[in-house]
Amino acid sequence: MLTAAARSRLVVVLVGARNPQNIGAAARAMHDFGFSDLRIANDFAAPFDAAQLEALSPGNTAAVAAASVIQNARRFDSLQEAIADCHLIVATTAIGGRELTQPIVPLQQAAPQILAALDTTHTPLLPTPYSLLPASVALLFGSEKTGLTNDQLSHASLLATIPLYAPADSRHLSMNLGQAVAVCLYELTRAGLEGARELPVLHEAAATAQDRERLTQLLLDVMHATGYTRRYPHNSDAPVVRRLVQQLGATHLEAMTWMGILRQVLRREEKSTE
Amino acid sequence: MLTAAARSRLVVVLVGARNPQNIGAAARAMHDFGFSDLRIANDFAAPFDAAQLEALSPGNTAAVAAASVIQNARRFDSLQEAIADCHLIVATTAIGGRELTQPIVPLQQAAPQILAALDTTHTPLLPTPYSLLPASVALLFGSEKTGLTNDQLSHASLLATIPLYAPADSRHLSMNLGQAVAVCLYELTRAGLEGARELPVLHEAAATAQDRERLTQLLLDVMHATGYTRRYPHNSDAPVVRRLVQQLGATHLEAMTWMGILRQVLRREEKSTE
Repeated sequence: MLTAAARSRLVVVLVGARNPQNIGAAARAMHDFGFSDLRIANDFAAPFDAAQLEALSPGNTAAVAAASVIQNARRFDSLQEAIADCHLIVATTAIGGRELTQPIVPLQQAAPQILAALDTTHTPLLPTPYSLLPASVALLFGSEKTGLTNDQLSHASLLATIPLYAPADSRHLSMNLGQAVAVCLYELTRAGLEGARELPVLHEAAATAQDRERLTQLLLDVMHATGYTRRYPHNSDAPVVRRLVQQLGATHLEAMTWMGILRQVLRREEKSTE
Repeated sequence: MLTAAARSRLVVVLVGARNPQNIGAAARAMHDFGFSDLRIANDFAAPFDAAQLEALSPGNTAAVAAASVIQNARRFDSLQEAIADCHLIVATTAIGGRELTQPIVPLQQAAPQILAALDTTHTPLLPTPYSLLPASVALLFGSEKTGLTNDQLSHASLLATIPLYAPADSRHLSMNLGQAVAVCLYELTRAGLEGARELPVLHEAAATAQDRERLTQLLLDVMHATGYTRRYPHNSDAPVVRRLVQQLGATHLEAMTWMGILRQVLRREEKSTE
């Protein structure tokens, strides 16, 4: 079930990781469970540079196994760039005291959906420019201190949480970054071993994060052009709109259709104000 | 299912851990998943002492949450002492190139058995001296370098393995210690959430590791006294015998019965050589 091809389509994205050792630990977990595409979303280059240096230091036997993952890792200045080519964006989050505006599922419920997306045999790609890109899943992990912010969470179409122990007096739930990555990849491996549960099959190319970001920007333009933004400013922040778009069009074709509709609205607006 | 009482009966035993940071990471994972009984089996005190100091250092925010686990942790000079009061001994191991002499199951298959043992409602204790001890499960993790040795594995009644990715050219499979602990405790939590599968219920007090060790020593005495040791020296090493005893008597009463039988053999031997 978790073939080499399927594994190669899973992307682990560390968003704002600050501790080089944690980046190394995440790489180690990926290596141990057979995944290789590590991306760092951080406009600050130092932690990733340090993690790469550390992986190469001869005394660091623990990191040797994971060195290839670190060496092939890439850094992006923004989360948006890091996930542009990904189709299913899954954010990991501790529930904590945070007020969530998106549905959240336990990790074990998210796993079958992730596996179905990774399985190439289930997603025949359409002859569009996008068919050249393999469909892929991004698994987002937040920074050690804050986890993923609401803005970062808004990029995700699925929120997954690891069932941590929460005594009544707990204010802050969080996990060590490397351990969280290990647990998530274990769950995928475990679910892969069980065989895929039957899930609805998507017979079209899935929408990418780039599709969704374009849709978000278009929708924001429409909201601005139509005066919605002025009347309902609290509904018009980019994260709010991005979440709206998560529900809008699962396939690339659907996303394109939505974009066409929004562009048409804009065109009409422009004409009416000429 | 995983009540506070059940959680308190799980013991994590780090056998020969050398890196204080790994001890801290294991404590962190235990804290995050709501477990608290950490034991270090190591005749060398330095790593544990260093881990305790580190947990108390004010700059170490990551370890603060886990400080209570580290502070209440105990060190034992030997594995045998560390698990003396435990009933079900589960060893974690990577399969690697090692020649195994005990049956091994994937972690997810071991979890229901562990949960059943932790569940007090399933194991009414008998009015013996042992009923004062809560039944408990020890989860053993080996040292960073070598994992558990065959001798250490022989103390376990169940061997569990985390399904790591093993490409054809892999010689050495291993996981970061903290990550391995996190994955195992996640699996228990996960299985606990699913509800216990129906398992045969043990209506007697389970045998402890101490029971088994006594049995092992008695059996060795018998083997020696009867001349078996001389005739079959390769079958007479303590680890071999300890593994034999794993299959011998699941309850304390059964273990006592076996001991009685063996003592009787010894008595007869002593008489015949007088």
